[in-house]
Amino acid sequence: MKKTALFIIFFISLNIYSQTDEVVLKQLYSESLTNGKSYDWLSYLTTQIGGRLSGSYNAEKAVAWAKEELDSLGLDKVWLQPVMVPKWVRGTKEYAFIETTPGKTTSVNICALGGSIATSPAGLKAHVVEIQGFEQLKALGKENIEGKIVFYNRPMQANLLHPFEAYRDGLNLRYQGAVEASKYGAVGVIIRSLSLKLDEFPHTGVMSYEGVPVEKRIPAAAISTKDAELLSTMLKLDKTIHFYFKQSCKQLEDVQSYNVIGEITGSEYPNEYVVVGAHLDSWDLGDGAHDNGAGVVQSMDVLRLFKKIKITPKRTLRIVLFMNKENGLRGALKYAEEVKSKNENHIFALESDTGGFMPRGFSFDSKEADYNLVLSWKPLFKPYLQQYFEQGASDANIGPLKTNSNVLASLRTDSQRYFDYHHASTDTFDAVNKRELELGAATMAALVYLMDNYGLK
Amino acid sequence: MKKTALFIIFFISLNIYSQTDEVVLKQLYSESLTNGKSYDWLSYLTTQIGGRLSGSYNAEKAVAWAKEELDSLGLDKVWLQPVMVPKWVRGTKEYAFIETTPGKTTSVNICALGGSIATSPAGLKAHVVEIQGFEQLKALGKENIEGKIVFYNRPMQANLLHPFEAYRDGLNLRYQGAVEASKYGAVGVIIRSLSLKLDEFPHTGVMSYEGVPVEKRIPAAAISTKDAELLSTMLKLDKTIHFYFKQSCKQLEDVQSYNVIGEITGSEYPNEYVVVGAHLDSWDLGDGAHDNGAGVVQSMDVLRLFKKIKITPKRTLRIVLFMNKENGLRGALKYAEEVKSKNENHIFALESDTGGFMPRGFSFDSKEADYNLVLSWKPLFKPYLQQYFEQGASDANIGPLKTNSNVLASLRTDSQRYFDYHHASTDTFDAVNKRELELGAATMAALVYLMDNYGLK
Repeated sequence: MKKTALFIIFFISLNIYSQTDEVVLKQLYSESLTNGKSYDWLSYLTTQIGGRLSGSYNAEKAVAWAKEELDSLGLDKVWLQPVMVPKWVRGTKEYAFIETTPGKTTSVNICALGGSIATSPAGLKAHVVEIQGFEQLKALGKENIEGKIVFYNRPMQANLLHPFEAYRDGLNLRYQGAVEASKYGAVGVIIRSLSLKLDEFPHTGVMSYEGVPVEKRIPAAAISTKDAELLSTMLKLDKTIHFYFKQSCKQLEDVQSYNVIGEITGSEYPNEYVVVGAHLDSWDLGDGAHDNGAGVVQSMDVLRLFKKIKITPKRTLRIVLFMNKENGLRGALKYAEEVKSKNENHIFALESDTGGFMPRGFSFDSKEADYNLVLSWKPLFKPYLQQYFEQGASDANIGPLKTNSNVLASLRTDSQRYFDYHHASTDTFDAVNKRELELGAATMAALVYLMDNYGLK
Repeated sequence: MKKTALFIIFFISLNIYSQTDEVVLKQLYSESLTNGKSYDWLSYLTTQIGGRLSGSYNAEKAVAWAKEELDSLGLDKVWLQPVMVPKWVRGTKEYAFIETTPGKTTSVNICALGGSIATSPAGLKAHVVEIQGFEQLKALGKENIEGKIVFYNRPMQANLLHPFEAYRDGLNLRYQGAVEASKYGAVGVIIRSLSLKLDEFPHTGVMSYEGVPVEKRIPAAAISTKDAELLSTMLKLDKTIHFYFKQSCKQLEDVQSYNVIGEITGSEYPNEYVVVGAHLDSWDLGDGAHDNGAGVVQSMDVLRLFKKIKITPKRTLRIVLFMNKENGLRGALKYAEEVKSKNENHIFALESDTGGFMPRGFSFDSKEADYNLVLSWKPLFKPYLQQYFEQGASDANIGPLKTNSNVLASLRTDSQRYFDYHHASTDTFDAVNKRELELGAATMAALVYLMDNYGLK
């Protein structure tokens, strides 16, 4: 035995809940697991509507469908909140190859990053310089980069336990990569897909040209992890090979879209709002099943569960399905703006945006006293395998609702598989397990119920 | 607020670990996630060898492969322990249909249960009586059952949080169903597959004829959950429909097989044994990826990780890959018998048999003092998301090793998806996620390391 430490802890715990709460939680989980509607809804949203990028026809179909389904739940009010959203279209499927000698080519899988410009109609062919981060741009200098394609090949860090941490570490390359490379005269950028899995599917996601004049913008695409390995190997053998890619995406004018909102009016404190929500838009490559069809149908099922089990909320319980999280966050900003202008007191907001995987608990963004309140409910969740109750950042759509006195919570799921599907064509209905999805819906409903029941001091 | 309870707990915790332990755990997880071998091994075992029922050619290939791989790790000793095992063969693929009127049939998916007899070569056709449990056999009586096929259609309980609990609840129908039905003159039994998913895949598993003379045995098969629903619906419309099935399975003579064993001799206490293991055999329908290729390759990686990170175990660290868990447990019984006869002091044994899903922690079978010892290590596992440290039953293969003074532990994983694959043709390599598998291997290695380092009082 190397070291023995003796800790004496005086543990004073105020468990602020009742037996009734235990019964309600049991009903919520049981109903979700036996008669839940989330899985059927997800089936429709993903297989009958599919990918629904902001401004697309599918996004409008999703808005109409969500409104119709909420209407069918017998809520007190359902409405659409107009918001202007960006419209970026992918155009013809991208095409790319590695050329070792003229005429000798190997096809690779790429996809344009969201917001990227097209290549010229004939495509773009250039030498490649492979780097891992921006500091290497500076070290190499203009003389080694000008006229070339910059290939950012930094794998996500597999040794980090939380894949989201590894994702955040790679995000700047995707978001800023084109801006930074264009400063050194690069003609295009290819980034290794942000995925921990070695496979053939490219993963899209938003990028930016902030501050770069239109004529200086360069096209940006993601390459599958397998093809990133291939390209890297071929570059090691011969630095003079060419990379060719062609994409025809473009940014159009903003168009009108909507947040979809529904509510059950509070019976005791109608002017206090408890919000549950998720983003309704998705990227276009897959069907947006985990990202974020799961969160949409789970949020919808929270209100359905309240109706089904006949829980009358004391506070006004509202669902918000936000438009345009993926490439603009316009819906979330619009919603928060109206909340502010109407002075609606949002005491609590809960978002689900980490996929329909096994839920583990929540991340809380609140002041200490309120965190202690939610911590006192933790024992209630033990039978349901939910024990992650940590302080941390809130998800993107509810973030703008933060005040000094409210509580924001984000559902946290087992995220080991999340980036296998994230923003890729693999994000389809079959990647979601029914029970895991339903457990997420029940876990959300349980927290919403407790917050509505006890409120904040 | 309905009720406020005030608890004051004096919590005295002896954390019996050191900073060195924290470093070792970090190395184990990091190595497994970045250079783990479990996933490659699983790929070979499932796609190159495949399903490996005891006594089959594949089972012998798996024995040879496992020995060869263990040999390559530079252990101090690797050997095969002979054991006689049952040999049951499925024969030609089963065939079944529902017949509403002569000549009008609907095909359904079934599979023989392990250990079942065949039907006659022409198959078996009879009326069907649908029930949920044995008590209904008694209520219906011989007059309603004789000459019919008994259809046990009790769905697994979706509202139970732990699918293993729901499985255990349904197990008696599969294991005992034929014996019980034959007492009332049934000519065959069909059981609803033990799966929480509604799909077309039948799930096999072991059944018994205990005490029933050969001439009174009736054939038993599992039907897919979707076809169970179909058959039930059709019976509601018309009780006089026929069910036909044909299967040509048979029980042959016992054959010779082996447990595969390897060890690193302990540097300080070579006569104390720390065992890690899993069962090497599998059912024949799938490739035995989750059940239990995952456990096999994770156990192998525990020893590889020790070698790689240069941890010299104080106690003798042994891996045992048990033969014939699925239909006999002969390997486990044989191993325990030899341990006893040689008086080998097994202070600890750890098994992985709940699939290659996200690990959550362990179930411990030990006396209170030893449970408190392992509980004191729990904080070490928090960064790795392992917080399930509960007392409970141990898995089947290590069970026979229980003494009054040792500790048995079983890896516990997220089991929501387990029965989607269990004993079915869907249990293939693609159903296993690389990171989840690797996290399981590291979690096992971490516990083995701590147990070896500190031992028992």
